Amino acid sequence: MFHIGILVFPMVQQLDLTGPFEVFSTWPEARVDLVWKTTEPLVSSTGLWLRPTIAFEDAPRFDIICVPGGRGVDPLLLDDEVLDFLRAQALAAKFVTSVCTGSLVLGAAGLLRGRRAACHWLSLPLLAAFGARPSSRRIERDGKFITAGGVTSGIDFGLQLAALVAGRAEARRIQLMIQYDPRPPFRSGTPRQAGRAVTNAIVRRQKAFQAQRAALVARAAARLPAPA
Amino acid sequence: MFHIGILVFPMVQQLDLTGPFEVFSTWPEARVDLVWKTTEPLVSSTGLWLRPTIAFEDAPRFDIICVPGGRGVDPLLLDDEVLDFLRAQALAAKFVTSVCTGSLVLGAAGLLRGRRAACHWLSLPLLAAFGARPSSRRIERDGKFITAGGVTSGIDFGLQLAALVAGRAEARRIQLMIQYDPRPPFRSGTPRQAGRAVTNAIVRRQKAFQAQRAALVARAAARLPAPA
Repeated sequence: MFHIGILVFPMVQQLDLTGPFEVFSTWPEARVDLVWKTTEPLVSSTGLWLRPTIAFEDAPRFDIICVPGGRGVDPLLLDDEVLDFLRAQALAAKFVTSVCTGSLVLGAAGLLRGRRAACHWLSLPLLAAFGARPSSRRIERDGKFITAGGVTSGIDFGLQLAALVAGRAEARRIQLMIQYDPRPPFRSGTPRQAGRAVTNAIVRRQKAFQAQRAALVARAAARLPAPA
Repeated sequence: MFHIGILVFPMVQQLDLTGPFEVFSTWPEARVDLVWKTTEPLVSSTGLWLRPTIAFEDAPRFDIICVPGGRGVDPLLLDDEVLDFLRAQALAAKFVTSVCTGSLVLGAAGLLRGRRAACHWLSLPLLAAFGARPSSRRIERDGKFITAGGVTSGIDFGLQLAALVAGRAEARRIQLMIQYDPRPPFRSGTPRQAGRAVTNAIVRRQKAFQAQRAALVARAAARLPAPA
C-alpha cells in the first residue's frame, strides 16, 4: 500500500487537490489522505466544502506528500506548524510534491533551495525568493521533488507520478478509466497561448492580491536560514 | 448572475463534479450550488467527503443543471425523487447537462429520447436503452442538452459551456487562470488510444459491476412511458 498525504487547508484551490486525488484514488494500491491541523471541515477558494481525513498529529510518514495551491497558501507561508510538518514529512517521503502555488509553501519550508520548481504562472517568479529556480515547465522534477504548474496540471502530474510509483501500465489504465483525452476548446492555457489581452485581464484582476502575496513571500523568505 | 446546480450524491465520481465546478466558479458571474435531497455530507466513490449546499426542496430553477457520474449513478436510475427533480429542472433550464455516466440518469428521467448523448466509454452503449443515440464524442450537444464523456471531459465541457453563456473571452480567461494546457503523459485516454491490453484490463475489472448496471438500466428503461 502506497500512502499519499495531500495537504488541505482553508481557501485551497480545490481542483489542485481533487485532480491528483482522483488519479491516485483510481490506483487500487494507493491510500490517499487529506491532512490538516484538525479534521474540521473547511472551505475551498471557490466555495467547495472539504473535510480533512487525518490531523497532523495522527499522520503517518507518507510515501508521497503533496501540497496544492490557491489563495489559502498565503497564511501558510508564515505558519510554523505547517512548515514544520512539511519539513518532517519531507525527510522520509519518497516524493515531495506540489501543484500550482503549493510550491511556494515548499519554498517557505526551505525545501526548494537550489532546486528547479514549477508554479502557477502568475506566481512563478516569486519562487526565486526562496532560492528555488523557477521553471515554466508543466511538471518539473528535481530529485525527489516534483512540482506542477497551475491547477489542471495536477492531473498530468498525478498520472506521471502514478507511472513512477505504480508503473506505466497502471498509469495508462488510470488514464483510460478517467477518459483523459483532453480537448481544450481554446489555445489559452498559458500566457503565451492566451496572448496579451487575455493575460493582462487576469494580471489586472489579480494585481492587488499578487502584491500582497509578494510581500508575504518576502517576509517568509527572510525567516529562512542563510544558505550554507 | 447565472445559477448553476450540480447534482451531488453518494458515490459520485468527484472529478466529474469538481472539474466543471472549478471552471464555473472561476467565472465571477456564476453561482454554483451542489444540490441533493438533503444537505447532509456524503462520500464520493473514491472517498472524498462532499457537502451539498442546497436541498431539492429549496432549490431555485437553475439556469444550468448538471449531473455528474460515478458508481452512485446506479440507484438514481430508479429513484423517483431524483428523476422528478431533474424533469422539473429540465423544463425551465437553459442547459441540461451531464458529465460521464450522469447521462444515464438524464436518460432514466426520459430526457434523452431521440437525442445524441455522450457518456463514459464503458457505459456508453447503455444509453440506447433510454432511446438516446450514443455518441462517442467527448462533448455532445443536442439542442439544450449537453452531455460529456468520462470524468476529465468535465473540464472541456465546463469551458465550452462557459464560452456559450459567458462568451469566448471569459472562457479563455478561465482557461488561462486554471492553466489548462493539458499534457497527458500517455496516449491512453480512449479505448482506441489505449489499445486492447489496457482496455481489456479495465473491462475485466469492471465486468461484474457493468453487468449489474446493465440490469438496472433495463429496469429503469422499462419504467419509461412508451414513445409517442
